[in-house]
Amino acid sequence: MADDDRIILAHGGGGELTRRLLAERILPRLANELLAPLGDSAVLPRPPGDICFTTDAYVVQPLEFPGGDIGRLAVCGTVNDLAVCGAAPRAISLALVIEEGLAVATLERIVESVAAAAREAGVPVATGDTKVVERARGDGLTITTAGVGERLAGAERLDAARIEGGEAVLVSGPIAEHGLAVMSARKGIAFRTVIRSDAAPLNGLVAALLASGADVRFLRDPTRGGLAGVLADLAETTGRNIELDERAVPLTAAARHASELLGLDALAIANEGKVVIVAAAGDAEKVLAACRAHPLGRGAALVGRVGDRSDWPLVELLTAVGGRRIVQRPYGEELPRIC
Amino acid sequence: MADDDRIILAHGGGGELTRRLLAERILPRLANELLAPLGDSAVLPRPPGDICFTTDAYVVQPLEFPGGDIGRLAVCGTVNDLAVCGAAPRAISLALVIEEGLAVATLERIVESVAAAAREAGVPVATGDTKVVERARGDGLTITTAGVGERLAGAERLDAARIEGGEAVLVSGPIAEHGLAVMSARKGIAFRTVIRSDAAPLNGLVAALLASGADVRFLRDPTRGGLAGVLADLAETTGRNIELDERAVPLTAAARHASELLGLDALAIANEGKVVIVAAAGDAEKVLAACRAHPLGRGAALVGRVGDRSDWPLVELLTAVGGRRIVQRPYGEELPRIC
Repeated sequence: MADDDRIILAHGGGGELTRRLLAERILPRLANELLAPLGDSAVLPRPPGDICFTTDAYVVQPLEFPGGDIGRLAVCGTVNDLAVCGAAPRAISLALVIEEGLAVATLERIVESVAAAAREAGVPVATGDTKVVERARGDGLTITTAGVGERLAGAERLDAARIEGGEAVLVSGPIAEHGLAVMSARKGIAFRTVIRSDAAPLNGLVAALLASGADVRFLRDPTRGGLAGVLADLAETTGRNIELDERAVPLTAAARHASELLGLDALAIANEGKVVIVAAAGDAEKVLAACRAHPLGRGAALVGRVGDRSDWPLVELLTAVGGRRIVQRPYGEELPRIC
Repeated sequence: MADDDRIILAHGGGGELTRRLLAERILPRLANELLAPLGDSAVLPRPPGDICFTTDAYVVQPLEFPGGDIGRLAVCGTVNDLAVCGAAPRAISLALVIEEGLAVATLERIVESVAAAAREAGVPVATGDTKVVERARGDGLTITTAGVGERLAGAERLDAARIEGGEAVLVSGPIAEHGLAVMSARKGIAFRTVIRSDAAPLNGLVAALLASGADVRFLRDPTRGGLAGVLADLAETTGRNIELDERAVPLTAAARHASELLGLDALAIANEGKVVIVAAAGDAEKVLAACRAHPLGRGAALVGRVGDRSDWPLVELLTAVGGRRIVQRPYGEELPRIC
């Protein structure tokens, strides 16, 4: 396929063309010891601890946007699902479903981006699969990643059942940037300031947080459904109201402006490089210090507290103007195909 | 969505509709202890041995065909990739990318089929993700599964580097049935006899084979590219010619007839419940006995032998009429979207 510049169906047939697509375009970019044998499965050395296992499918449109692309998103999303489980990522898998007609150059850029994000997270792409489907929507590419991680010491303390009234709710930095970056790229909207996706692997930040000695009870990355979705889940899981202080939620002026322009609630917009943290009330400062000492946690803030038990647990927002309103779980999709 | 019968985009938005789709339609069918906490990752108990890790994307059309559907295929394919690595499956992940407009009843049948195949293999669906994309091709659904397995005792002997000239090449039963079943369903061709996909989880058969004491050097499931593809890979990996006896290759009369009708080479047609085995020359009978004692290996046969070293290693077919021909690796896709 040296002279071709578009993917054709036969690249997915499992024959010589598939072999060449992999050997020439994909594998050299992902090279690592676990992937190299190209067996049906990758073999990972015997782990000393429990294993965490996760998967995510990515259907974001467009494939590339300010601050990232579907490849970076897929790696970060899976690494972050392991991280919030208290696990260090040990291997990820990469399944590509390519639409015929996708430019080979685009595929190569995205695979490069997968490789770069994997290096950033310190995790090998250990196994994968590639399929090609007929041209249709012009979607180009969907990626499904799965990840295997090893639970860190202290991770067993992450247990929402331990959460009590009065505990601190924190977020590791400014929210809503991923969703806004994708929307602006999709709609061709130029905001006054370019908003870049925050997609980033959080395993380093989480490891630092667990090592800090702070009594952390819960970690979750606020992706689809945003901060509002995570806190609605938390209220449901704990059976407690959650109080959120609007003025304390980190949000850049650019993101605030863009959310207003699009008529969206920043609290419900997806993030791909942030973590929501619940910690013992007395340990909020320790959590903030650990976050702020890490490049991905510099904008961390204490945003609320866990409230009383309730038969109808709710997320209550103390608004900037001194009012109160209930934060609803987003109903359907405000932002389709955002991740 | 109690009264809805079609998937809509909002089912994929990460909000209340997503929660209900999962809670009402998907999770009850997959219920197991690992999945129940619905965390970002599933936590698997500390394994005593090495971990195998694999992934596959499934884009088969149509979604349902004689003998199986995309759900059964996805579970069996991932279990089989672990099995041929000598691993007992411990957990699989399930990522669904659903096209809006898919009938909810179809989704439910396919999730039931995932659950049934997982029970058959004795492996829980431990984690998953669900996305919805706009209506386009009418593809309906793609599924990506990943699997984590634990290497069985004796699996370290599976090593293509140990293969020597004169060793036995076997296959666990009649070939080509999966690909023919899908093609007949897609094209609406009625063969004289209905051909059913052979999709089945091979972990039990492989465990029996490894426990038999036979000196097995190599296992591979002949999916895309069929038996021809596996043997072409084997010739390349070992640097040895592979001799295949056409008369010995198990093929039902119905499958032979259907292949001829479609103008396809049965050797290159996909299987989803067969395994190709290379074993020490003296152990062929032991392998056959172990296979034939298992319900999924009753049609096992010795089909060829590993030949001499060569600078241009080839797969050579001894034809039924006494001639010889080179078996080519399939070039592109003879059978697109077969798995």
